Amino acid sequence: MKSPQAEKARLDRVTVEAISDVAAGIHKRIEKHVKPEVAFPVRSLGNVRYDPAKGFFEIGKAKSVRTLTVTTAKTFAQTLKMMALSKELVETNDFATKRDAYYQSKNWGEAHFDEQSESDMVMDDVEAMFSVHGVSREQLRYIPDEHGGAVAGELIVFDTDLETAKVEKIDCTRFGSGAYSIPSLVEHLTFETKAKFILCIETGGMFQRLQSHKFWQKAHCILISMAGVPTRATRRFVRRLSDSCKLPVYAFVDCDPYGISNIYRTLKVGSGNAAHINRFFCVPQASFLGVTPQDIVDYKLPTHPLKDVDVKRAKDAIKNDPFFKIHKPWAKALESLIKMGVRAEQQALARWGLNYVLDEYLPAKLKHPDKFLP
Amino acid sequence: MKSPQAEKARLDRVTVEAISDVAAGIHKRIEKHVKPEVAFPVRSLGNVRYDPAKGFFEIGKAKSVRTLTVTTAKTFAQTLKMMALSKELVETNDFATKRDAYYQSKNWGEAHFDEQSESDMVMDDVEAMFSVHGVSREQLRYIPDEHGGAVAGELIVFDTDLETAKVEKIDCTRFGSGAYSIPSLVEHLTFETKAKFILCIETGGMFQRLQSHKFWQKAHCILISMAGVPTRATRRFVRRLSDSCKLPVYAFVDCDPYGISNIYRTLKVGSGNAAHINRFFCVPQASFLGVTPQDIVDYKLPTHPLKDVDVKRAKDAIKNDPFFKIHKPWAKALESLIKMGVRAEQQALARWGLNYVLDEYLPAKLKHPDKFLP
Repeated sequence: MKSPQAEKARLDRVTVEAISDVAAGIHKRIEKHVKPEVAFPVRSLGNVRYDPAKGFFEIGKAKSVRTLTVTTAKTFAQTLKMMALSKELVETNDFATKRDAYYQSKNWGEAHFDEQSESDMVMDDVEAMFSVHGVSREQLRYIPDEHGGAVAGELIVFDTDLETAKVEKIDCTRFGSGAYSIPSLVEHLTFETKAKFILCIETGGMFQRLQSHKFWQKAHCILISMAGVPTRATRRFVRRLSDSCKLPVYAFVDCDPYGISNIYRTLKVGSGNAAHINRFFCVPQASFLGVTPQDIVDYKLPTHPLKDVDVKRAKDAIKNDPFFKIHKPWAKALESLIKMGVRAEQQALARWGLNYVLDEYLPAKLKHPDKFLP
Repeated sequence: MKSPQAEKARLDRVTVEAISDVAAGIHKRIEKHVKPEVAFPVRSLGNVRYDPAKGFFEIGKAKSVRTLTVTTAKTFAQTLKMMALSKELVETNDFATKRDAYYQSKNWGEAHFDEQSESDMVMDDVEAMFSVHGVSREQLRYIPDEHGGAVAGELIVFDTDLETAKVEKIDCTRFGSGAYSIPSLVEHLTFETKAKFILCIETGGMFQRLQSHKFWQKAHCILISMAGVPTRATRRFVRRLSDSCKLPVYAFVDCDPYGISNIYRTLKVGSGNAAHINRFFCVPQASFLGVTPQDIVDYKLPTHPLKDVDVKRAKDAIKNDPFFKIHKPWAKALESLIKMGVRAEQQALARWGLNYVLDEYLPAKLKHPDKFLP
């Protein structure tokens, strides 16, 4: 296996080459007195393919072309400046958030952005354009503003300082009641583990219960707190960890259309409007431990009535979401949830005692991962 | 200094005694055929005192009394059950979130809660009642559902396992690009540090920049990511760390009424409607490094216009908030912000280069902590 530094150096070369290639193409057209243009994949649900064998929402072939004209002059310049910023970030071994990039543009003279929404759009375009070249947002050195999730359990993370080459060894069994907080960029991390699976948990409260009672010790696993829809950093971390250590990923979320179609589906196959990056960020090997609609019956869980917005979300998913259209057991599960008219939170298991979840529910479930929803 | 276990055992005794005392009082009245009652401090901004010498919003003397009658029978029973739950949690060395407590109540027969809002209210009442006895929410073993913040820098955290007495030593300089994630309960943690101050940062993006470039090494400090309004766990962590290591706390947030009056003011003196717990959670020793309204001028920062809601929030604060009424420099700063009609984000410093904030801005500011806003 290559060292993290060698791998990073290789990726950096790929990134700079891709940027230089696109720029050279534009330059050539200008020299030939042909109007220069840049092409981006269209980013919308309508331009998405889902092949379960590949395991994630892929961006389709539809492209939009930005040709240099009087009206596009500013956006065209901004796109090139954004590419130049990315190249500079790679060369200085730095990174920028969307906000950072917006404020950097204040030095771009007439090409500066007036609103962050404009600069976000251009950054998304640039990301989409280079995703076609197999270059991820992280390689372009754009990092999310959001926090990563928290990690505890049988895992050692190796974090190589890319300047000094010093390696920090982070033992996730050694944080007491605390946890390891995932950084915004995870590409340079490597892992060592004897765990049997990764458990991705929706709520901070449930994560804290499993962590404080060292559930990972008994079950030989790695606990990840997603705290709602997992951030890109969290998804990429789970994906890289699962890929490199060949670990199955089990999701443990609330039984409601949001937990199922937003949190779980985003974790597993990615999202529609960010389809150009799903190949890097989704976790196709994930399966759904619970809470399932059937669990509500089997465990006599306290429920809340489904709200109108829940029902609408579930019906939309069955009708329009390629993921639920292809996975019949899921369409069935959502339909039975709509029929039951209720939802249940993962903490509803506390009805049977605060630690029922770790003494009974999870051990019983973990005996039959083959029965998990896809 | 007492060991964390001895201190915890003492606090647990205090907690159980306080619960038993209140229960015994009720029992005695019943035996005397007098209607039993429980009294809670009124939780509202109208029942708040602010003495800068004490440093936090204190709850006033107004009380509401719940007497057992036909109409209050259920709530009365729920209050006693909630107290009993707390006693059980102490005795079994466990904890519960608000959600957990709600679901536990499903076993309380007719005293069960129908909605979590009801159980949250009763829990807040019980907290307020015992805060008068000097017993914190954490001692009652109620923990927040939310995540803690992230920590990096010159700090060693000692986390004692309260069952096995094994001590984990967590070195916050050894997380590479990642960080230490604060647990929900921090009472049992102890600290060792040579840092000179604690820097509390609003955004995850800025935290990542300072952490990745090891700003804490150069400045000898501890970095804390608040990610918006700091959670209770984060505030309590900063407070305990600052108290026990005698460290000043500097806040680095956006220059807008939300950053100033919600994030910073909550960190320093607590909030109005949770005044019964501010004594445990506020950080009175905090001061405001920036971004100040004057910084917008001095550093020629890119700005956004203040929204109506911003102006309203600032005017409300000047008029009604005891904190801004007492600290004149703050009222002045808010007034000048309203006059300027703009706000600036902390990442606006990126205008002068991505690392201007750590190479120039923070070092210049840190030469004059005496000039920080109170």
